[in-house]
Amino acid sequence: MVNIAVLGYGTVGSGVVEVIRTNQAIINKHAGDEVHIKYVLDLREFEGDPIQEILVHNFDVILQDEDVKVVVEVMGGEEPAHRFVKQALEAGKSVCTSNKEMVAKYGAELIQVAKEHKVNFLYEASVGGGIPIIRPLISSLTCDDITEVTGILNGTTNYILTKMRDEGSAFEEVLKEAQEKGYAERNPEADIEGYDACRKIAILTSLVCGRQVDYEDVHTEGISQITKTDFLYAKALKGSIKLLGTYRRIEDKVYVMVAPFIISEQHPLYHVNDVFNAIFVHGNMLDDAMFYGRGAGKLPTASAVVSDVVDEVKHMGKNIMQIWETGKLELGNFDEWKHKFLVRIHSEDIDDVNMDDVKKAFGDVLYMKADGVKNETAFVTKPMEEGAFREAVKQFPGVLSTIRVGF
Amino acid sequence: MVNIAVLGYGTVGSGVVEVIRTNQAIINKHAGDEVHIKYVLDLREFEGDPIQEILVHNFDVILQDEDVKVVVEVMGGEEPAHRFVKQALEAGKSVCTSNKEMVAKYGAELIQVAKEHKVNFLYEASVGGGIPIIRPLISSLTCDDITEVTGILNGTTNYILTKMRDEGSAFEEVLKEAQEKGYAERNPEADIEGYDACRKIAILTSLVCGRQVDYEDVHTEGISQITKTDFLYAKALKGSIKLLGTYRRIEDKVYVMVAPFIISEQHPLYHVNDVFNAIFVHGNMLDDAMFYGRGAGKLPTASAVVSDVVDEVKHMGKNIMQIWETGKLELGNFDEWKHKFLVRIHSEDIDDVNMDDVKKAFGDVLYMKADGVKNETAFVTKPMEEGAFREAVKQFPGVLSTIRVGF
Repeated sequence: MVNIAVLGYGTVGSGVVEVIRTNQAIINKHAGDEVHIKYVLDLREFEGDPIQEILVHNFDVILQDEDVKVVVEVMGGEEPAHRFVKQALEAGKSVCTSNKEMVAKYGAELIQVAKEHKVNFLYEASVGGGIPIIRPLISSLTCDDITEVTGILNGTTNYILTKMRDEGSAFEEVLKEAQEKGYAERNPEADIEGYDACRKIAILTSLVCGRQVDYEDVHTEGISQITKTDFLYAKALKGSIKLLGTYRRIEDKVYVMVAPFIISEQHPLYHVNDVFNAIFVHGNMLDDAMFYGRGAGKLPTASAVVSDVVDEVKHMGKNIMQIWETGKLELGNFDEWKHKFLVRIHSEDIDDVNMDDVKKAFGDVLYMKADGVKNETAFVTKPMEEGAFREAVKQFPGVLSTIRVGF
Repeated sequence: MVNIAVLGYGTVGSGVVEVIRTNQAIINKHAGDEVHIKYVLDLREFEGDPIQEILVHNFDVILQDEDVKVVVEVMGGEEPAHRFVKQALEAGKSVCTSNKEMVAKYGAELIQVAKEHKVNFLYEASVGGGIPIIRPLISSLTCDDITEVTGILNGTTNYILTKMRDEGSAFEEVLKEAQEKGYAERNPEADIEGYDACRKIAILTSLVCGRQVDYEDVHTEGISQITKTDFLYAKALKGSIKLLGTYRRIEDKVYVMVAPFIISEQHPLYHVNDVFNAIFVHGNMLDDAMFYGRGAGKLPTASAVVSDVVDEVKHMGKNIMQIWETGKLELGNFDEWKHKFLVRIHSEDIDDVNMDDVKKAFGDVLYMKADGVKNETAFVTKPMEEGAFREAVKQFPGVLSTIRVGF
């Protein structure tokens, strides 16, 4: 029997308890041992819930119990989660977590501490919820030079963008509806401004590049500026708008960003709709691959957490090798990263636009029209450096909006 | 340094050599040791190719060399591959393979032999080419009750079906074109009659259920009977035709089959086109997930093979637990499995069809039309047992074709 402790009895924590109780026999078989929840840590009381019997309020009870071999951290937030996890690892307990904030900030450190103490620190659920992506990166995609990872990493924003596209609704309308349905938080900033996706792409990039990517270094844009009209242009381009977290390695420089992109219907991520998430990976041997599933939700996320518990039970006394070293990875200069952009300019008529001025500012562009849009002129640039493009937009009169075009 | 031997210098074998030579540094880093190809076994000579220096023609050289710790079997076919693999495992060498025929037939046995000798037998590339699916099933989806696995498991047939849909071409035309492009073999039976997909779904089902599924027990239909007209109906149903290998567990009975299905554009497999493969998995906690990528091709397949080499180097002296026991898994009675069917009947006019007779034979059905189709009446049944449906078709006059509807 292997005793585990669950820190936090919120959505994911209660999911972890439910997954283990429902699939106990399957889990034991895969773990090769009985997985037993000895403690649940939470500051609250849960009268009437069977877990009340194993509820503790003081982390030291867990830390000092040598019988506890695996600690499941599903409290969220940076502290005290980070302190508890570090103490548990130092006490010779393996830890798994769904906490993306903590993993993004302290991943390299905690992997190192785990290694030193011959235990494991795993975090499958921190990116892509139930989708197996961390373990495939650690143990399957081990003989490829991975030059791109691009993901739809946030279910709330993907739900909003899918609704905007399919129903022609405005951002605010759909956000309100998503909040009513519980798909978006009352304070939705972390999702809609891309902060959640930013931490996730920082984690994936760190793992692929083998060194710490600080999420503060990741250029991050959200979706709150996206309009119905942007979707009309996306449609005219036979594409759709998706909030992407993307890592690219170009000429040995690593670039990372989160931003809305128009992607083509030919791209496998185009078909990832509603609250689903997916991570697209390109390797020099593998070519293209994609991992798809539920990026959030109590049970899918808990399923990923418990798969880490099983792996840790299978690897008692043996550290699973992970290449994510401390020491900051220097990113390429964002201003030099090249993208194509859709640019919308206010104009009563296309004749009002001085094409020479456009060419001077943006180079050769492709003018385009979208059904149902008036009083605008729009064009798609060739690949331009981010810095030069931003400068051109600042100088050019009447720019309504811009959005990157990913094909 | 870990010495490996590659059995077979055909497409995949030369791919394995190329993957290791191109990504040597990455591979060594993940393996935690230098991966070195000591021998390549092939009956042929390869004058001018650098591998000629390490080429051997006699397997015993490899078998008797204690320095060889990992054997890569990429010869294909059942024998002598199976004999070589078994001997290698018994000699204390880990083995990995891309050979689906051998894995489908001898998987349980070879896993058992590996376990007894504290080595590993891995076969990531035997299903889905470069797509990580075997390892995720073994080590990620360990806490779910997996009730469905459905895959587009054969690139050749998916290419043909995609072309038929997009270009409105006939099967024979597209097959010929695929053969010219090298996407289909000159003798394409194994692909187009579903035999290849059959072995792959047998492997996946064995792994998910933990016991040997004999591929001979899997009901298998190919795509050679699919016509342009079938695609017109699929389109009218807002779906497309895909060759699926599918495992389902329904009321504790396991059903497995390979057959063309009409699937809805809402299904994630709908968007898997051309030579791409994907495997859809449903678990009771995970909900839906999908793994997508290149199901064949020299380098993607070799990338999966070498990922097994890396895993085996990381697990020297330690058997990776796999639950796939010998002893045949009894499948549910295929005739009792229920599906919806599209039935096309010859008729000059819908008035020629006696709806009472249809109802008597097929129960309540939904009549439908497809643009561009004449002199036919078509309907979709409610879910019917396979046996009863087959009997009804036999009795009913003028049935032109039938195809399962997966939604």
